[in-house]
Amino acid sequence: MKQRDLEALLADMTLKEKADQMLQVVGQMILSEDKNVITGPMQELGITEEDVRLAGSVLGSMGAADIKKIQKKYMEEQPHKIPLIFMLDVINGYRTVFPIPLGQGATFEPEVSKRCAAVAAKEAAVSGVQVTFAPMVDLVRDARWGRVMESTGEDPYLNSQFAKAMVEGFQGSDVSEKYKVGACVKHFAGYGGAVAGRDYNTVELSEHTFREFYLPAYKAGIDAGAELVMTSFNTVNGIPASGNKWLMRDILRDEMGFDGVLISDFAAIKETIAHGYSSDEADAAKKAIEAGVDIDMMTSCYSKNLVKLVEDGEVDEKLVDECVMRILKLKNKLGLFENPYKDADEEEEKKFILCKEHRALSREAAVKSFVLLKNEDQALPLKKGLKVAFIGPYTNNHNIMGSWSLIGKREETVTIEEAAREVMDPETTVFRQGCPVLGNDVRIHAFNGSEQEAEVEEADQEKMMEEALRASGEADVVVMPIGEHFLQSGEATSRAMIDIPEVQMELFRRITAVNDNVITVLFNGRPLDLREITRKSKAVLEVWMPGTEGGHAIVDVLTGAASPCGKLPMSFPYCVGQAPVFYNEYSTGRPYTEGIEEVDRFRSRYLDVPNKPLYPFGYGLTYTDFSLSEITLDKEKMEADGVIKASAILKNTGSVRGTEVVQLYIRDLAASIVRPVKELKGYRKVTLEPGEEREVVFEITEKDLRFLLPDNTWDSEKGSFKVYIGTDSQTENGAGFELI
Amino acid sequence: MKQRDLEALLADMTLKEKADQMLQVVGQMILSEDKNVITGPMQELGITEEDVRLAGSVLGSMGAADIKKIQKKYMEEQPHKIPLIFMLDVINGYRTVFPIPLGQGATFEPEVSKRCAAVAAKEAAVSGVQVTFAPMVDLVRDARWGRVMESTGEDPYLNSQFAKAMVEGFQGSDVSEKYKVGACVKHFAGYGGAVAGRDYNTVELSEHTFREFYLPAYKAGIDAGAELVMTSFNTVNGIPASGNKWLMRDILRDEMGFDGVLISDFAAIKETIAHGYSSDEADAAKKAIEAGVDIDMMTSCYSKNLVKLVEDGEVDEKLVDECVMRILKLKNKLGLFENPYKDADEEEEKKFILCKEHRALSREAAVKSFVLLKNEDQALPLKKGLKVAFIGPYTNNHNIMGSWSLIGKREETVTIEEAAREVMDPETTVFRQGCPVLGNDVRIHAFNGSEQEAEVEEADQEKMMEEALRASGEADVVVMPIGEHFLQSGEATSRAMIDIPEVQMELFRRITAVNDNVITVLFNGRPLDLREITRKSKAVLEVWMPGTEGGHAIVDVLTGAASPCGKLPMSFPYCVGQAPVFYNEYSTGRPYTEGIEEVDRFRSRYLDVPNKPLYPFGYGLTYTDFSLSEITLDKEKMEADGVIKASAILKNTGSVRGTEVVQLYIRDLAASIVRPVKELKGYRKVTLEPGEEREVVFEITEKDLRFLLPDNTWDSEKGSFKVYIGTDSQTENGAGFELI
Repeated sequence: MKQRDLEALLADMTLKEKADQMLQVVGQMILSEDKNVITGPMQELGITEEDVRLAGSVLGSMGAADIKKIQKKYMEEQPHKIPLIFMLDVINGYRTVFPIPLGQGATFEPEVSKRCAAVAAKEAAVSGVQVTFAPMVDLVRDARWGRVMESTGEDPYLNSQFAKAMVEGFQGSDVSEKYKVGACVKHFAGYGGAVAGRDYNTVELSEHTFREFYLPAYKAGIDAGAELVMTSFNTVNGIPASGNKWLMRDILRDEMGFDGVLISDFAAIKETIAHGYSSDEADAAKKAIEAGVDIDMMTSCYSKNLVKLVEDGEVDEKLVDECVMRILKLKNKLGLFENPYKDADEEEEKKFILCKEHRALSREAAVKSFVLLKNEDQALPLKKGLKVAFIGPYTNNHNIMGSWSLIGKREETVTIEEAAREVMDPETTVFRQGCPVLGNDVRIHAFNGSEQEAEVEEADQEKMMEEALRASGEADVVVMPIGEHFLQSGEATSRAMIDIPEVQMELFRRITAVNDNVITVLFNGRPLDLREITRKSKAVLEVWMPGTEGGHAIVDVLTGAASPCGKLPMSFPYCVGQAPVFYNEYSTGRPYTEGIEEVDRFRSRYLDVPNKPLYPFGYGLTYTDFSLSEITLDKEKMEADGVIKASAILKNTGSVRGTEVVQLYIRDLAASIVRPVKELKGYRKVTLEPGEEREVVFEITEKDLRFLLPDNTWDSEKGSFKVYIGTDSQTENGAGFELI
Repeated sequence: MKQRDLEALLADMTLKEKADQMLQVVGQMILSEDKNVITGPMQELGITEEDVRLAGSVLGSMGAADIKKIQKKYMEEQPHKIPLIFMLDVINGYRTVFPIPLGQGATFEPEVSKRCAAVAAKEAAVSGVQVTFAPMVDLVRDARWGRVMESTGEDPYLNSQFAKAMVEGFQGSDVSEKYKVGACVKHFAGYGGAVAGRDYNTVELSEHTFREFYLPAYKAGIDAGAELVMTSFNTVNGIPASGNKWLMRDILRDEMGFDGVLISDFAAIKETIAHGYSSDEADAAKKAIEAGVDIDMMTSCYSKNLVKLVEDGEVDEKLVDECVMRILKLKNKLGLFENPYKDADEEEEKKFILCKEHRALSREAAVKSFVLLKNEDQALPLKKGLKVAFIGPYTNNHNIMGSWSLIGKREETVTIEEAAREVMDPETTVFRQGCPVLGNDVRIHAFNGSEQEAEVEEADQEKMMEEALRASGEADVVVMPIGEHFLQSGEATSRAMIDIPEVQMELFRRITAVNDNVITVLFNGRPLDLREITRKSKAVLEVWMPGTEGGHAIVDVLTGAASPCGKLPMSFPYCVGQAPVFYNEYSTGRPYTEGIEEVDRFRSRYLDVPNKPLYPFGYGLTYTDFSLSEITLDKEKMEADGVIKASAILKNTGSVRGTEVVQLYIRDLAASIVRPVKELKGYRKVTLEPGEEREVVFEITEKDLRFLLPDNTWDSEKGSFKVYIGTDSQTENGAGFELI
C-alpha cells in the first residue's frame, strides 16, 4: 500500500477505531466463542467486545492454523480490513531453543546470534508470528537481577554488536521478506539498572552513565533497523518510562531518530498508576500518548479513555493519528494488507521446526557459549577409559532452555545422560541424579503463579544421596551437572543470595569429600558465587541454560569432540557483597592496588574481599594453552585522521587445537569527564593448531577514542591513552600513545 | 577588621601570598626546626619552605600550648600578619567522646547532638582549635560503606535536623563567641552513595534523587550558618566534586547561597588526576579554582601552580581574590586578626576537658542512642539476684569511641566491666573476654597503615574459650558484648560482608549452645546482618560505639537504672544481598505484598529473602509496652493555606515508665514525578508513666507536602495523600486526605 493510501485509510477511521488500533490483546479473546472471556478477565481489564473486534495487534498467539483462524475471523468484522499483527516473545529460539542470551554473549561471536535469530524468525514466521519482542539489549551489572539471563552482559560495545546481529537475524535485510519477523528492541531504557538488583525497582544512574553505558545498545538495535521498541517498567530520573516524554520524544525519537512503533511492556501504561505517577487510567493514557507510546499492551487505558480525552480536548487527535500511522506503516511494511497471514504455513511448520539444521545450530551455539572457568591438571576433556559418574540434578534434566522459552518443549531437549549414552562406554559410565534441583523447603512459582511441587520426596532423597555417594566412590572421575532451577532466573526472579541451591551444595560437599576428582558443569542464568565450587572442583564448565541441544553440546565438550572457547560477558562476583561489580568502572581518585593498604589504607577497597570479581569479564579457558606476546604499537602519536596498529602475537603452546578470543581495551588517561578504567573496543576469535602462532592486529582510529562529553555529544579529546591486548579484561599487557 | 580593611589587605598581598593562603598544611611543618620535614615528606608533596611560611591554615594540630607556639612562630614571619586558622576533625567529641554520629541519629533528639557539639566545641576551642571538619551530613543507604558510622542515617528530614543542630552546637549563634568553633558541612556532595558501598567509588544517582534526597541535609547545615563546606571525593555526574563547576558554583553558591569557605577533602584536588579528570597538578588547580574551591588541603596543586596559571592567563586573578577574600573573612569572623589564639587556654583545658558535666552528657547521649532490638520475656533489664556472666571481647574493651575519635584517649573510656563493678554484686557477677575482637587470620590496618597485631595468641584463645564456657554454664544469664572492631567501620572500611567477626560468632554459637538465656550487646559502626544473633538471643541491645562513658551507659540500661528509647536511623538489612535497603524508596509499578506471588509472581521482590529489612528505620523497643490508637485526621480536605491535625493516642500499657518516639509519615499518592512510599515528616519523643496516655498531635501544612518537581523547584501538588502515625517506618496506621 502506498503512503497516500495509508493516509486515506487513517482519515477514514473513526476515533474509536483508531484508539483500538493501539490496543494489544491476546488471541483467544478474538477467537473465543465463549462469552466468558469477555465477561470474565476481559471485563476486569475494562476491554469490551467492541475493543476486541477493533484491537490492532495480538500478543502470545502461535501456530499457523490458529493464527490464520484468528486473523480470518478478525478480518471478517474489521470495518477497514486492517489486519492484526501477531507478536510473541521469541527470545532464544522458537521451538528450537538456543542458549539463553547471556550464554550467546559468551560466544563473543554475534554472527552466531544472528544465525540463531534467523532460525528463530523462520520457525516463528511459518507459525504465523510476525513480530518478536526481542532482542533485549539492557546492559546489566548486578547478578542479583534475574533478567541478566536475557541480556548479553555488562559491556556496551559487546551488547551493541549483539543488538545489531539479533535485529539483523530476525528481520533480515527487509522484514517483508519470507521467514522474517519484526524485531523489538527492549526495554527502553535502563531497565537493567534496578537498585539492589530487585526487578522493577527504581533505576538510579547519573544522566551521563545512563547515556554513555546504557543507551548505546538500544541505539545499535535501532540503527540496525528494528521496527519496534518496547518501554521499560522502571522510572528514568523519577518518571516511569511509559509516560516519560523526555525519554521517548527527546531521546528516542529526536536524538536516536527512531520512527517505528513504540509498544509498552505488559500493562506498563496502567502501572504508572501504581508508580503514583498517574492518578487513574485516563491520566495514564494521556501521559503515555504524550510520550508517544503507540501500543498499549494488555490494558484498557487507551481503549477506554482516548476517545473521551480527545473529545474533551485533553489530548490532541494528532497524537492519536501519529501513533496509528506508525502501526499502519508497520503492517504495511510487513505486507499484511496484501497477505495478512504473511508466512503462516502448516506444511512449512512441519518442515522447518526443529529440523536437523536448526538442531545443529543449537548444538553449535551451545558449544560456543560454554565457558571453561577452571581446568586443573587438564581434567577436561575426560580421558578415555576412566570410570565416569555423572551425578547431579542436571544429569538427566530437560529443563535447560531458560525460563523465557515458552514455545520450546522440554521433551524435545537433549539431556546430558541421553547424549552421553550415545557416545560413552556404558560399562564405565553411570548416571545418578543425587538430589533434586531445589530442596523441598524452597518455594518457587511458575509464570502463572502456581507453586512448583516438590521434585522428590524427602525419603527418596536420602536414597538418591546414598546411590550418588556409592557411585562416586567407585568412579575415577565425577561429573556434577548442578545449578539454578530454571525458574530462579528470568523475569521477577531477583535473588539476594546468588548461590547454588543448598540441597545441591550438600550433595557437592559430600561427593567432593569422597572423590577429589570432581568436574562441575554449571547450569545457571546469572553469575553465581562460585568460591566453594571452584575451590573443590578440578574443572568447572559454565554451560548456562544451553537450549534444545544442550546435552549433546556438553558431551561434545566433556569428551573433547569439541573445545570450549566462550568468554564471560559479565563478571562473576567473588560474593554478592560486591554487587554490582563490573570491569568497566570509572576511575576513582583513590585507586587500590594489592598491598598498598600497608602504606596507604585510604583506598577504594573492601576490608574483607578483593575488589576484583572471582572471574572477570572476558575470561575463559580453552583445552590448549596460549601465549600472548607483549603489545606493540606501530606509533606513539596519532593524528585525528590517523590509524594506530596495536598488535600482539598469539601462539598455541599447548598440544591441541584451540580458539582464543583476543581482546582490545582502551583507557583514556585524562578527559573532561571521568573515564572507565578500561573499555572493550574490539576482539578477534582466533583458532590455532598446536605450535601455530599468529599476529593479531587491531587498527585504532580516532572513532574508537570517542566518548560522551559533558555536553552530551560524542567526541574524542587529545591526550594520553593506554591500549591493552589480552585474553580477559584484567590484562595488564598495555602500551601508551598520544592523540595529537 | 572592617570589610574595607580586608580589601586593602588583599590588595596588598602578592600573588604568591594569595596562592599560599589557600594552602592547608599540618602544624608540625611550621613548628619543625628539623629541615627533614621540608626535605622529606613535604618535598614529596612539592611544598616549599616558603609555602609553609605563607600557608593559610593548619590541619590536625591541637592543644593550647602547641597551637599558640605554632601561631606565634608563624605570625613572626607572615608578611601581613595574617593568622593561621587551625582546623581539626572534631567529630563525635573532642577528648570527651560521644556516641558515633549514627548512634546520635538513633536518639531522634537533635537537641542532644547540639549539646554534644557545644561541649566538643568548648573542649576543642580551649585547646586552640578554631574550625572542625564536622558535621558530616551525607545521606547513607548502604551498610557496606564504612562511613555510615559518621552519618545520622538514611532520612533527609532527620539528617537535616541533625545537620542544623550540630552546626548550631559547634558555632553557637556567633562563631566569634567564646568556646565556639567554625563548622564544616561535608562532604559535598552525595559521597554516601558510593556504588556497591565501596568507599571513594563512583556515585550513580539520577539528578532528581541527588537533589531531593542527598542535597537537603547540606542545605540545612548551610542554612544554619555553617562557615565551611568540604568537597567530596566522588564524582557527580562524571565530574569529581573538587573540580565540578556545576556542583560548586551553580548549586552550592548560586542555588544554596553558600558564601563561606569551600575546602577540599584531604588531597582531593590532586586526586582529580587519579580520576583521570585532570592531566596534571596545574590542570587540577585550574579546575578546582574554576569550581571555586578556596582551600587545597595537603597538596601543592594551588601553591605550586596558581601563580603561573595567573601569569599565563590560564586563571583569572579575580578567582584567586575571591577565594582568598573568603578565607580572610572567615579569619576575621573568628576574630583572629584581633586575637590569633582565640580561646586557646591551658588553664581552661585542665578545667573543662573531660570535666564531670561533659562526662555526664556523654553518658546521657549514649543511653539515648541505644536501640533495643529484641527483648523476649522481658529479659532486660536484668533481674536482681541472678548470676550474670559478661562474656565477649567488649566486656572490658576501651576501644569504644569509633575510629574517628583521634583526640579521645582509650584509657579515659569506661568499659562495661569497670562500670558493672561499681554497681553489681561481685558475688554473682563474672567477666570473661571469651575471645578477641578479631581472629588472628583477619588483617586490619590502623590509620597510618600499620597492621594491627594479633590481640591474643592462638593457644590463649582456647583457654579463654574454655573459661567463657565454664562461666556461662554457671550463670543464670549471659550478657555478650560483641561486635565489629573499631577499625572495621569509618573511612576506607567498606565491607562486602556485614557480619560480626567469625571468631566472635564461634564464641556466640558455643555460648548459646550451653545457655539459652543470652543477652547480646552490639558494638558496631554500621547495620549488620543480625539474623543469627537475633534468633539465638533473648534480648539484643544495639549500643553502636558509645564513647567515653559507654560502660556506664550500658550498665545503666542493663540494670534498668535507665531505659532504652533509641530508634534506628538506618535500616538493618536482612542480609547484605538486600543492600541498599531503605524505607523511603520510590514506588514501583509492581509493588509486592506478602503472598501475592501466588496469583501474580511478576512483582518487585526477591525470591529468597523478604523485601523488608530485618529491622526498619525508626524501629526500637523500650522496657515498657505502648499502644497507639488508630490515626485520626481532623478533616479530609486541606486547602493550600490550611492545616490538618493528625493525631493518635499513645498509652503506656506496661508497668514501667518509658519513652516512645511517635513518628509521622506521609505518602503522596500521585504526582508529576514518582514519590517515595513513605517520608518522615515529624516525630515526638513522649515519656509516659505506666497507665498514662497522651494524644500526640501533628499539624500538617502544605509545606510538608512539598517535593522536588521535575523542573527542580520545590512545591506541592493537589491530590491525594496518606498520613501514617506509628512507632517505626513500617506502620500501617494510616488515613487519607486531599489537598485541594
